[in-house]
Amino acid sequence: MAKSLGTQTIVIEKQPIIIAGAAIVGKKEGDGPLGRYFDDIVDDEYAGEKTFEAAESRILRDTYIKVLEKSGKAATDINLILSGDLLNQCTAASYAFRDANIPYFGLFGACSTMSESMIIGSMIIESGSADYVVCAASSHFCSAERQFRFPLEYGSQRTPTSQWTVTGAGAVIIGKDGHGPKITLVTPGKIVDEGIKDANNMGAAMSPAAADTIMAHFKDTGRSADDYDLILTGDLGAFGSTMLIDLLKRNNIDLKGKHKDCGTLIFDIEKQGVVCGGSGCGCSAAVFSTYILDQFNQGILKRILFLATGALLSPTRTQQGETIPGIAHALCIEA
Amino acid sequence: MAKSLGTQTIVIEKQPIIIAGAAIVGKKEGDGPLGRYFDDIVDDEYAGEKTFEAAESRILRDTYIKVLEKSGKAATDINLILSGDLLNQCTAASYAFRDANIPYFGLFGACSTMSESMIIGSMIIESGSADYVVCAASSHFCSAERQFRFPLEYGSQRTPTSQWTVTGAGAVIIGKDGHGPKITLVTPGKIVDEGIKDANNMGAAMSPAAADTIMAHFKDTGRSADDYDLILTGDLGAFGSTMLIDLLKRNNIDLKGKHKDCGTLIFDIEKQGVVCGGSGCGCSAAVFSTYILDQFNQGILKRILFLATGALLSPTRTQQGETIPGIAHALCIEA
Repeated sequence: MAKSLGTQTIVIEKQPIIIAGAAIVGKKEGDGPLGRYFDDIVDDEYAGEKTFEAAESRILRDTYIKVLEKSGKAATDINLILSGDLLNQCTAASYAFRDANIPYFGLFGACSTMSESMIIGSMIIESGSADYVVCAASSHFCSAERQFRFPLEYGSQRTPTSQWTVTGAGAVIIGKDGHGPKITLVTPGKIVDEGIKDANNMGAAMSPAAADTIMAHFKDTGRSADDYDLILTGDLGAFGSTMLIDLLKRNNIDLKGKHKDCGTLIFDIEKQGVVCGGSGCGCSAAVFSTYILDQFNQGILKRILFLATGALLSPTRTQQGETIPGIAHALCIEA
Repeated sequence: MAKSLGTQTIVIEKQPIIIAGAAIVGKKEGDGPLGRYFDDIVDDEYAGEKTFEAAESRILRDTYIKVLEKSGKAATDINLILSGDLLNQCTAASYAFRDANIPYFGLFGACSTMSESMIIGSMIIESGSADYVVCAASSHFCSAERQFRFPLEYGSQRTPTSQWTVTGAGAVIIGKDGHGPKITLVTPGKIVDEGIKDANNMGAAMSPAAADTIMAHFKDTGRSADDYDLILTGDLGAFGSTMLIDLLKRNNIDLKGKHKDCGTLIFDIEKQGVVCGGSGCGCSAAVFSTYILDQFNQGILKRILFLATGALLSPTRTQQGETIPGIAHALCIEA
């Protein structure tokens, strides 16, 4: 039975296990520093489909098939799929899983979707309602670009704080038993809006939410950066990461070099022309589900705080002059 | 500790209690047969805001404040908010709850969002991760119409199977204790796609999913329509409801006059010019959170199966020639 710790953190007593992870990404992500960790690299941005949206669903579906294969589980062992994406009406996930024949919950946490799905998945396993759940998220540069910004053909210019939407999907299977790192504590995030209006500066919009969740987690648990090998944010990018460190310093919290960000890990910012780094639900999903799990398997990581971060905006609300709310959901994951 | 029953149904042992419900709707909904049950009727389609999207957030936020008030709980008693809507990037909910200062999980189940949120909420309470959760959903005719169809100014014609998006929001508070009907069983739905391509015939796209979930629930539990006072679907509308009855008959299941649909309850189809009835996340959310809870309080209902139904489409995928996947999540609710 789960227990509250402080006001926002929950101890998951069953300590659900991440029994497998998989990721499939696009060519640019495959060319990046983590290329060798991904299960497959899709050179064709259409992934053999007719549209970018269908391609994203295909990549997500194939990632799901891959994680099943790696886990040794059959689809019939899975009780629930928890997934989401950035596309309008979350169709990447709905179409990816329409033939799965498994109960499905669609989630929307923007780029925080991966940790949202893992927290909900852990709670569901804790409740006894499921033995094994799939948690997955995806994004696609081409489908996101034309939906949130401009058609690719326009060749839009990038501002100094912009990020590059990752083409890729990541999926994990969380189970009541098995081998792998375990989820011990979760800190679901609150929506935080510090008044950022620049839709090309997601890092600035999300970093106050990341700071808020980290502060809540440290306060609730009495822990500090010393207790973690790594504090891994979703996709703040270079600018947002700097802002996070600064925001925390103002609150007398020092991450002591323990912080890394999936958005800056997945690309070589200097060489790959991605400005501030990667973004999109698929970014943290792919990095966590492969590279990070590998670091656990190798014994390099023993305990991390993983918090994917989301900018809960839409082009419509941004055009109406609205500010951008952010959110970050954190999980403590231990070997 | 929850237990599986059959392949898709889960017994929620704690039997979480729906301690309060509230709904705020638009003028047309207020003029409908259920008008007197709603907590407030907003005559101005802008709800005092500058845009339809902001109006939807305002109505959802005010509904949340109303349900808190009716429950006698303070915001600090609430551990989690689970909410979603139809707007791009689920912004109605994100903006509604950005000042709530409560951990938040965004959901996307299209018009099935209300029962998705209540199932996840029940599981989370069962796990001990939360004592009280808010489950809420909204829609708005004007924001939905311009996003999914045409700007209102175009005066688009309605096809014979079309439905009218409800302007309104509904919210319930589910708790580990308190007074009210309880959630005893849940049957999360699978995505079902029977090849419907007509985005003006949501009822046809969703009814196979509703049939699938009802059949799974009956099979898992050994129950039939005899065991329920009411089998309440989300918003199949008149056409979808007829299709549901027909699909179940072909599978030797007779609902024996026990079926009603939130989409046909909320409007007077003959008089209000809504063709096949209401739709939108706000439809089942508002009807369930007020009228249905009132029927429980009056002792008229003792046990119902509530399943909100969702069409997981997007204009983009429909324009690309895709078929429309549907989903329906069911809860058994007892006095």
